[in-house]
Amino acid sequence: MANFKGHALPGTFFLLFGLWWSIKYSFRQIQRKKERQHGDRNRQMHTVLFSRIDLIEGALKIFFAFAGIMAEQFVPDGPHAHLYQNGWVKLMNWQHSTMYLFFGIAGIADVLSTSSHHAPVGLDRLSLSLALFVEGFLFYFHVHNRPALDQHIHSLLLFAVFGGSASTMMEVFKRDNAVLELLRCSLTILQGTWFYQIGFVLYPLSGEQWDLDRHDNIMFITMCFCWHFAVALFVVGICYCGVFWSSKWCEGRQLGDMEMGLGKCTASDSISQKALLQESDEE
Amino acid sequence: MANFKGHALPGTFFLLFGLWWSIKYSFRQIQRKKERQHGDRNRQMHTVLFSRIDLIEGALKIFFAFAGIMAEQFVPDGPHAHLYQNGWVKLMNWQHSTMYLFFGIAGIADVLSTSSHHAPVGLDRLSLSLALFVEGFLFYFHVHNRPALDQHIHSLLLFAVFGGSASTMMEVFKRDNAVLELLRCSLTILQGTWFYQIGFVLYPLSGEQWDLDRHDNIMFITMCFCWHFAVALFVVGICYCGVFWSSKWCEGRQLGDMEMGLGKCTASDSISQKALLQESDEE
Amino acid sequence: MANFKGHALPGTFFLLFGLWWSIKYSFRQIQRKKERQHGDRNRQMHTVLFSRIDLIEGALKIFFAFAGIMAEQFVPDGPHAHLYQNGWVKLMNWQHSTMYLFFGIAGIADVLSTSSHHAPVGLDRLSLSLALFVEGFLFYFHVHNRPALDQHIHSLLLFAVFGGSASTMMEVFKRDNAVLELLRCSLTILQGTWFYQIGFVLYPLSGEQWDLDRHDNIMFITMCFCWHFAVALFVVGICYCGVFWSSKWCEGRQLGDMEMGLGKCTASDSISQKALLQESDEE
Amino acid sequence: MANFKGHALPGTFFLLFGLWWSIKYSFRQIQRKKERQHGDRNRQMHTVLFSRIDLIEGALKIFFAFAGIMAEQFVPDGPHAHLYQNGWVKLMNWQHSTMYLFFGIAGIADVLSTSSHHAPVGLDRLSLSLALFVEGFLFYFHVHNRPALDQHIHSLLLFAVFGGSASTMMEVFKRDNAVLELLRCSLTILQGTWFYQIGFVLYPLSGEQWDLDRHDNIMFITMCFCWHFAVALFVVGICYCGVFWSSKWCEGRQLGDMEMGLGKCTASDSISQKALLQESDEE
Repeated sequence: MANFKGHALPGTFFLLFGLWWSIKYSFRQIQRKKERQHGDRNRQMHTVLFSRIDLIEGALKIFFAFAGIMAEQFVPDGPHAHLYQNGWVKLMNWQHSTMYLFFGIAGIADVLSTSSHHAPVGLDRLSLSLALFVEGFLFYFHVHNRPALDQHIHSLLLFAVFGGSASTMMEVFKRDNAVLELLRCSLTILQGTWFYQIGFVLYPLSGEQWDLDRHDNIMFITMCFCWHFAVALFVVGICYCGVFWSSKWCEGRQLGDMEMGLGKCTASDSISQKALLQESDEE
Repeated sequence: MANFKGHALPGTFFLLFGLWWSIKYSFRQIQRKKERQHGDRNRQMHTVLFSRIDLIEGALKIFFAFAGIMAEQFVPDGPHAHLYQNGWVKLMNWQHSTMYLFFGIAGIADVLSTSSHHAPVGLDRLSLSLALFVEGFLFYFHVHNRPALDQHIHSLLLFAVFGGSASTMMEVFKRDNAVLELLRCSLTILQGTWFYQIGFVLYPLSGEQWDLDRHDNIMFITMCFCWHFAVALFVVGICYCGVFWSSKWCEGRQLGDMEMGLGKCTASDSISQKALLQESDEE
Repeated sequence: MANFKGHALPGTFFLLFGLWWSIKYSFRQIQRKKERQHGDRNRQMHTVLFSRIDLIEGALKIFFAFAGIMAEQFVPDGPHAHLYQNGWVKLMNWQHSTMYLFFGIAGIADVLSTSSHHAPVGLDRLSLSLALFVEGFLFYFHVHNRPALDQHIHSLLLFAVFGGSASTMMEVFKRDNAVLELLRCSLTILQGTWFYQIGFVLYPLSGEQWDLDRHDNIMFITMCFCWHFAVALFVVGICYCGVFWSSKWCEGRQLGDMEMGLGKCTASDSISQKALLQESDEE
Repeated sequence: MANFKGHALPGTFFLLFGLWWSIKYSFRQIQRKKERQHGDRNRQMHTVLFSRIDLIEGALKIFFAFAGIMAEQFVPDGPHAHLYQNGWVKLMNWQHSTMYLFFGIAGIADVLSTSSHHAPVGLDRLSLSLALFVEGFLFYFHVHNRPALDQHIHSLLLFAVFGGSASTMMEVFKRDNAVLELLRCSLTILQGTWFYQIGFVLYPLSGEQWDLDRHDNIMFITMCFCWHFAVALFVVGICYCGVFWSSKWCEGRQLGDMEMGLGKCTASDSISQKALLQESDEE
């Protein structure tokens, strides 16, 4: 996978997951805040919705991990599930498969945590943290004997990976901490965009090669990493604000509808009150 | 102990402890969850059972540590308790004895914590964490001047050892955290299987030696470590599920028995009620 | 900016912010303690005051960051917003701009946290922590290929920077912890004075150059860093005591006034009681 | 101070403080546990006693730090408060003075924390943690260009110093955690005995020099450090048990006295009841 596409593919995945998480967690946080303030009527509906979303997310992780492993193994120049034939076969592909495997495990943990009350709390975060740790761990021993800039650009990636792993590990203990969740989102987006950056630098599309040993380039790339992070923070901020305003706008419209419909509301209201009473009986 | 058996022995111990802990902590967590949900009648019985198990575990640790120290000292080519005779005598054996010593101390702390209310809470976890730290500490200064693969394979072990030490240290502050306990179990199993792996690589049973300086081998071993971890996580998961289902099955049978025996239950029930009253008086 | 002024400028900023924080946090802590002890009548007033102060602080951060970026870009020998012209243009200036950018982001987070209830709690501390981390991160890759003393004196700065970043990150989880706040103040002052020290050592005003490779000088500088820290701790202590005594003195005078005015107080007192009742209605 | 005495002196101080702390914290923990169980009548007396002890301890720290600084400066071959005379004067002595200075600051923080309610909680632990950190920090940059064993034996000391600093920092957040306090005690004793060990190895009393470059010696010293730690843990354990049993024995005697004196107790009892009532009024 030592080409531009090989870096763009994981980059796209991390980018999509980062963006998706920014929206999901923003929505969840805003919802939670609303409930705390004036008790949301739709609380149960939201809980069900969120757990269904988590389930789908977990299933997607499993699917992508499985697809990734298959792709790494059975691309034309892949190892085709052979590990040793007079020497190790295509260890790079095996390493990538291993990384996918752990993200698949994280997906399984997601599904278990969501679908059963009996899974220990925090299992999903722990497994995600471990998946990121293993990714960083394999990358760390990945880049020996390469030119200075190649090493440097990969080791910068490790800041995003291990940072994400550490912040996710913190989430095991400080569950539902808004700031940690947003930090994870931005570090995931950072990882995504940085994969692209690695692709652009090592396999430039324009054809003109970078000088991999110039100190200037290393200095620029270090700074560029910070810019990517600033952009990632900015994107997460935009998502949060967008979700916040759209949720406010929806609420406003609902309120307007309710006020308009207040006259004909009496009958259906008594029904919903009954439903609420039943609910509280069931709880 | 620089042979296959010398690595298989500690490996077996860690493997057994890891498996045992996976079962013990799974059982304890499931029990605790049940109690919280619908107040278990057998709560006191379980508390006594668990503290008795912890006592036995501590005693076993002490015994194994003592046996290990004796074995290291008095095997035919051991130091026979001599430390200095025109130069240090068999420092390797002394180092292993030191490691066992700290696991023995952890055993003593276990016994104290279980048998007395006056021992400070968390002493057992702290001492286990210190024992693992000392093991890693001695291993770290153990592998100078060896071939690249030998160093690498031992330094990978350190990830499992220090990881276990750190997660156990966390348990001092976050006692009875399910996720941390399972993480410790899987890191202990990982340590056990990795000891075997070290044995297989450095002293291959088939006789064919590994090339200890090839970069390929190092890359494979790094990845192999991740596979061991995945297997360890899988084993812990299996244990948890197994304990969960068997506990559910037992409960179902108990419930069935109870329903069948409901007719003749009145006499014995009043007795057990009396016992319960007495208990609550004693508390 | 490789001259004395280039180090004195950020030094002055950190010094001022450190001093300002020592006063602000001392005042806030003492106020909070008073309220807890005998419920302060002026509580609401203080909350409003503090949030207004935080708003101004945030705005100042944004302004200074913006001014700093502009200055770095458009000084006569700056890059004038050009990044690449047959090679990277003035990367140092770009790096400094990047640092300012993150302090600007911290300012924005301050403003958001203060002006809206909907921003997640701890956002201001997280963004400050990230700003300090990025500062340290860029400095870390900044000092390759320099003389020993130059490297050493900059790497000592990193202790203050990363220490500040870590302690601010802790504040995300342990909000309003008095000790952490004072530690952050002293580390910020330390950073300020150390920037001056770097300036004095590398660009001595007296003209006599330091020998940048002598081990003696390195030893002295290490120790000197500790002295700076001791002074910073001392300054924070002085600020705390000063605020404490002046707040006590004010209170004493208020009490005196109240006692003297006790006779004519009845009318106004009933008014203030009404105001209090209204307040509690509004809450 | 590059001789045996120069290492024995700080060693003795750390050893004494470690032993003293083991007794003090054991006593305090046992007392606290007793109070929680059956509400101690002597609670107020104990609080006063402990705060008086802490005050004395702080004063002693200040005194010793001051004496240490004076001794380092004005011993015959000391710098006599001269810092620069055609080159730095006796930087070693200045470094040691700096270390003492921070322990003096820790003493001042102790006195402030104990004597005033207005000092922020945890100030004493933070300042002790910083003092240990500065000690380790100066030692770390202290041992360049020395033989391998000399470097190694000093860097082992750093494990005790930084370990102590980290565990004391934890105490800022987890105040009165029994396990952390005992860990600090044992790390302080370890530091004390290890200073002696450094003295014995580098300046052997018997006159026979150690070979400072043999790998064997380094291996032994590493292991020896673990033994020191085991001994330190053992000593702390003994202190805890000793305090526990003696406190139990005292209580037993008190109880015996009380039972014997039960007849004549009525008069004095009513008095003590009155005292108790007064106390609860005062609270």
